[in-house]
Amino acid sequence: MKDHHSSSVLSELGEREAVRRLAARLTSRADVRVGIGDDCAVTEADGAPFDWLLTTDPVIEGVHFLPDAPPEAVGHKAAGRVLSDIAACGGEPLWVLLNVVATDYCPMERLEAVYDGAERLCARFGAAIIGGDLSRGERLELHAFAVGRVSRGHAVLRSGARPGDILYVTGRLGGSIRGRHLTFEPRVREGRWLAEGGWATAMMDVSDGLAADVRRILERSGVGATIRLDRVPVSDDVRSPGKNEASSVRHALCDGEDFELLFTVRSNRSAAFERAWADAFALPCTAIGEITTEVGCLRVTDADGHGGVYGDQGYEHFRD
Amino acid sequence: MKDHHSSSVLSELGEREAVRRLAARLTSRADVRVGIGDDCAVTEADGAPFDWLLTTDPVIEGVHFLPDAPPEAVGHKAAGRVLSDIAACGGEPLWVLLNVVATDYCPMERLEAVYDGAERLCARFGAAIIGGDLSRGERLELHAFAVGRVSRGHAVLRSGARPGDILYVTGRLGGSIRGRHLTFEPRVREGRWLAEGGWATAMMDVSDGLAADVRRILERSGVGATIRLDRVPVSDDVRSPGKNEASSVRHALCDGEDFELLFTVRSNRSAAFERAWADAFALPCTAIGEITTEVGCLRVTDADGHGGVYGDQGYEHFRD
Repeated sequence: MKDHHSSSVLSELGEREAVRRLAARLTSRADVRVGIGDDCAVTEADGAPFDWLLTTDPVIEGVHFLPDAPPEAVGHKAAGRVLSDIAACGGEPLWVLLNVVATDYCPMERLEAVYDGAERLCARFGAAIIGGDLSRGERLELHAFAVGRVSRGHAVLRSGARPGDILYVTGRLGGSIRGRHLTFEPRVREGRWLAEGGWATAMMDVSDGLAADVRRILERSGVGATIRLDRVPVSDDVRSPGKNEASSVRHALCDGEDFELLFTVRSNRSAAFERAWADAFALPCTAIGEITTEVGCLRVTDADGHGGVYGDQGYEHFRD
Repeated sequence: MKDHHSSSVLSELGEREAVRRLAARLTSRADVRVGIGDDCAVTEADGAPFDWLLTTDPVIEGVHFLPDAPPEAVGHKAAGRVLSDIAACGGEPLWVLLNVVATDYCPMERLEAVYDGAERLCARFGAAIIGGDLSRGERLELHAFAVGRVSRGHAVLRSGARPGDILYVTGRLGGSIRGRHLTFEPRVREGRWLAEGGWATAMMDVSDGLAADVRRILERSGVGATIRLDRVPVSDDVRSPGKNEASSVRHALCDGEDFELLFTVRSNRSAAFERAWADAFALPCTAIGEITTEVGCLRVTDADGHGGVYGDQGYEHFRD
């Protein structure tokens, strides 16, 4: 009998549902700790004191950057996305492979600049680009693949949040489309520090927007969360004299491609964590809410505790 | 001062020269044994008795398959290309990540069939698909990444051929466009056996055509080769009553996408090798020539020893 679900086209299903269905068809191996559904796949290596972190992301002209984007920035973004995934699991990035699709008339200089941008970012974190493939196509596309490692059993997953944990985010959110989506800093050092110190109980990077990404932690961890909207750190990119505060916060919740770290810390360690963070990093790190027992439920409140459930369509007060 | 080489476009340079220039811009890490330029990158991991093999290949609609190709076969090819790279280094494939680019109107059934084709092939060799990404585009594209392993120091590289070595190829070559390029069997078991038994001194898979691929072994090993054209195993796909023998051999030399193994064995072990192979496998394995001291020079001869240098444009006698 034919599965009637299968007759849908991708635009009806959406990316997440399609990935869920594809993942359901796959079988695994005993050495795979985490497959599809986290920032990285996590695998064990026989005889080594590490787990491996494997991840891949595309960066496609017209989808992830405009044709006139500086090519160094395009390369930076391609490497940055996979480095950010490894950071989000608390790992050390090691090796990167980069598949490039380019047009026949693509100037060699443009490709070299793409590689230089990717290489420069990798080198800053000690990672090396060691392979890839070049093929012809209709537009510039990069598919980056990265391998990282983390001490065995120490990968920080989306599934580790528990009721009572404090929810933190690094940096400031919103408005990355104004340029930061091409120049962001993957939080590799911060991610490793959070994993090595055992601070983070769950972690991911903010790629689809804070509200959407918090939901993934809730789903994977089987918990809920309340976010204090007045505490969400808003980027200067979405603050301007003409905009009201609610609009700025909405951007911070929904814009995406911030590539900041979103993570949870046990509440009885949060004071020590905040002191240790302040000693280690100049980057802001902000407590924006806490994990609750209401499975899958995201609530947002203002400073006075007023608010409500933040549904799939967002919170009504924060519409224009 | 600006490098005047950089002003070329990709179609003028060709893929190999472009990759050479890009690779020259990259820096490496101490744990990278082999970077760009072999079938896989080879890396070491502290404390593990293995080296790691990393590879990636694209499979793109209109380049690597036609729009009406069966989707299972497209998935098979995407997985098969990376499994074949790992086989060509003598490794065991472990984990595969698969990036998919698809159109908005791509039926979910088509994507599921692509995944099923990839999954089925991986499963047959004990490998698992454990990650990937789905994004929207103008045509179907797959970018597969694979990780394999090989006992430390035992990866078989393109650089290990020495004068006097006998040159072998598995299976039969030519005419894969008639269907085999979508249904080929990656020679994973054979590749591992060749590496574990210490038989193969240099190895790669035949993807661009025997003549072009032999040259890569010659370049990386700093040697030459003579191929006996009457011994090149020709696929039934290029034999037909209407075709002459020279034309069939030309197809076997030039067609590409055979995904057979091309490798060298020390001449003093070749008799023992041939007996051991015949005991282990039903697949044909044919001695087609030998490695010489003439650096970079590929000669072709007939059964009587007549022939000449096979240049970039092929051997004159074998033109139509």
